[in-house]
Amino acid sequence: MKFGLFGGAVANKSADTADSKGYDGFVDLIIEAEKLGYESMFMVEHHFTGGGQVSASLNLLTYIAAKTEKIRLGTSVTVLPWHNPVLLAEQTATLDLLSGGRLDFGVGKGYRDMEYKGFCIPREEALERFQESIEVIKKAWTSEERFSHDGKFWQFDDIIVEPYTIQEPHPPLWTAAGTDESIARVAESDMNVLFDQFASFERTEERLKVWQKACAASGRGFDPMEVGLARGLTITLSEEEYQDALKKRDVRVTKMIEKFGALPGLVKDEPESYSDPILDMEEAALIGNPDKIIERLKILESMGFTHILILIPDNIETLQIFASEVMPEFREEKTEIISAA
Amino acid sequence: MKFGLFGGAVANKSADTADSKGYDGFVDLIIEAEKLGYESMFMVEHHFTGGGQVSASLNLLTYIAAKTEKIRLGTSVTVLPWHNPVLLAEQTATLDLLSGGRLDFGVGKGYRDMEYKGFCIPREEALERFQESIEVIKKAWTSEERFSHDGKFWQFDDIIVEPYTIQEPHPPLWTAAGTDESIARVAESDMNVLFDQFASFERTEERLKVWQKACAASGRGFDPMEVGLARGLTITLSEEEYQDALKKRDVRVTKMIEKFGALPGLVKDEPESYSDPILDMEEAALIGNPDKIIERLKILESMGFTHILILIPDNIETLQIFASEVMPEFREEKTEIISAA
Repeated sequence: MKFGLFGGAVANKSADTADSKGYDGFVDLIIEAEKLGYESMFMVEHHFTGGGQVSASLNLLTYIAAKTEKIRLGTSVTVLPWHNPVLLAEQTATLDLLSGGRLDFGVGKGYRDMEYKGFCIPREEALERFQESIEVIKKAWTSEERFSHDGKFWQFDDIIVEPYTIQEPHPPLWTAAGTDESIARVAESDMNVLFDQFASFERTEERLKVWQKACAASGRGFDPMEVGLARGLTITLSEEEYQDALKKRDVRVTKMIEKFGALPGLVKDEPESYSDPILDMEEAALIGNPDKIIERLKILESMGFTHILILIPDNIETLQIFASEVMPEFREEKTEIISAA
Repeated sequence: MKFGLFGGAVANKSADTADSKGYDGFVDLIIEAEKLGYESMFMVEHHFTGGGQVSASLNLLTYIAAKTEKIRLGTSVTVLPWHNPVLLAEQTATLDLLSGGRLDFGVGKGYRDMEYKGFCIPREEALERFQESIEVIKKAWTSEERFSHDGKFWQFDDIIVEPYTIQEPHPPLWTAAGTDESIARVAESDMNVLFDQFASFERTEERLKVWQKACAASGRGFDPMEVGLARGLTITLSEEEYQDALKKRDVRVTKMIEKFGALPGLVKDEPESYSDPILDMEEAALIGNPDKIIERLKILESMGFTHILILIPDNIETLQIFASEVMPEFREEKTEIISAA
């Protein structure tokens, strides 16, 4: 089983907050996470939040590439409708090249009304823009000859896109999917899939089955590493901390739904994509003492999940405890021994 | 007098070239240059060259930001018509934040036909696009309130752009200018100016006078550090090397004119912007042994230039010799002593 991270940095200007030093704290945390054995990170990108969420995720990842050596560097996700696909191909190839082939490029259609409004892009165009961008980006990454593109949203004439990528034929593409339909669509493409941190274990298992079935139907083999499962994590060392953690998650999830009308990858009026976020709260997140978290991860492992992405916590201690007390239970050699026994 | 660098990295795929390790050699050279006392670098950005010229300059600069501590990091230039101005404001602010306020943002309208064609942007729109982008970028960097923009090329609705920049009120903007008219226009804005590496000493001096006059006329004080002068540099240690260097520059300049129809910042049919590139070759570049180069830099210094940008050479030795044999002649204390004498 492999463990990675997902989440985003925050930079606020006010001198009295912990994030007043820009992204420094976040960068330090990723450097430390690499040392602790976390193997990947997926960084959230958002625009116009007013709260300092990271906007230029590929730039911040490029900075982190220079400060790290092994950890894979992903986006979760870059919303394609906001970007010129050729510039994006150049920027991602540059990151892949500079990082020695560590890019996991997560892409999406967006879900925040504020961002569609801000960029003056009609929401109805999202899927078409997404599809056109994917096509251009893949061509831009892989074509060794000049090509032209005359699409609905973008035109390019006689271009060759550089630099080359280290990963062949190109860096892996990842995208989030929540409904059965969208999961099957991703499986039929050559993209990998990210499952969100909000769905219950039950729904999460259903999703994996949909993915496996669609992989089989489309002739794509099932590789569990191509499925990233996001999970919130709070390690609690007493009953009081445990109750407090449940409350905090409740507040957080409720706020997100109020603010954005939906959670990432999910749509309010598609109940199959999600049941009740508050009831599912404990089911979805990893909350508890290390033993409880190990027990719950074993359930996910038995379902077939081997690539868990932990929501980046505010403090390094959580990552340290997880690395020292939880991770060793899932080392490959250990898993093999158990399987063999 | 301060010395910086300008130029660009190249990354080619073929394993038998010196640049087969991506941008690594370039990054190492900049790290070394910082140690040698070079105070700034301006990186060229180009698209669709087929020769591996750097395309995502802000990403590469962000990587270099992580590997350096003092050297200022500039673009020369980011062609605004190719970019969404809000994304650019986010990317540049991120670089400014991560580098501790070291960004010099050089911007331009572009001059290569291949790039206009590639992005399918009519050349006639270049100036208007440039002007609209500058307006949006400055607002995006500085506005602490949400704002909207309803322009000819770009629309944004109710946005606030993050992260904040370290430099106040915003990172300096630089742009290249070659004709009297364009130099005066830059002086009237709040931008700094870059003079190219191709014009003769005579024309270069004229340009500085136009700049100084326009600064005076517009009420902007003259600060010599706001004028960056680019110069090619070849240190030759024998007559044979000297003749060889002249030939190489001839070939290079001629090729650029053939390929792009013009040199950066210059227009073929505006003779006032430039005389004969081949005749001016020796006049424009710094070619010779260290004594000759010192002598010629003294001429530039006496004209009023204090910020010289050296075209990044292929090898670190040139930068080392320049740092050890030329730079000490222009240290501030030395200059002051000479002035006082």
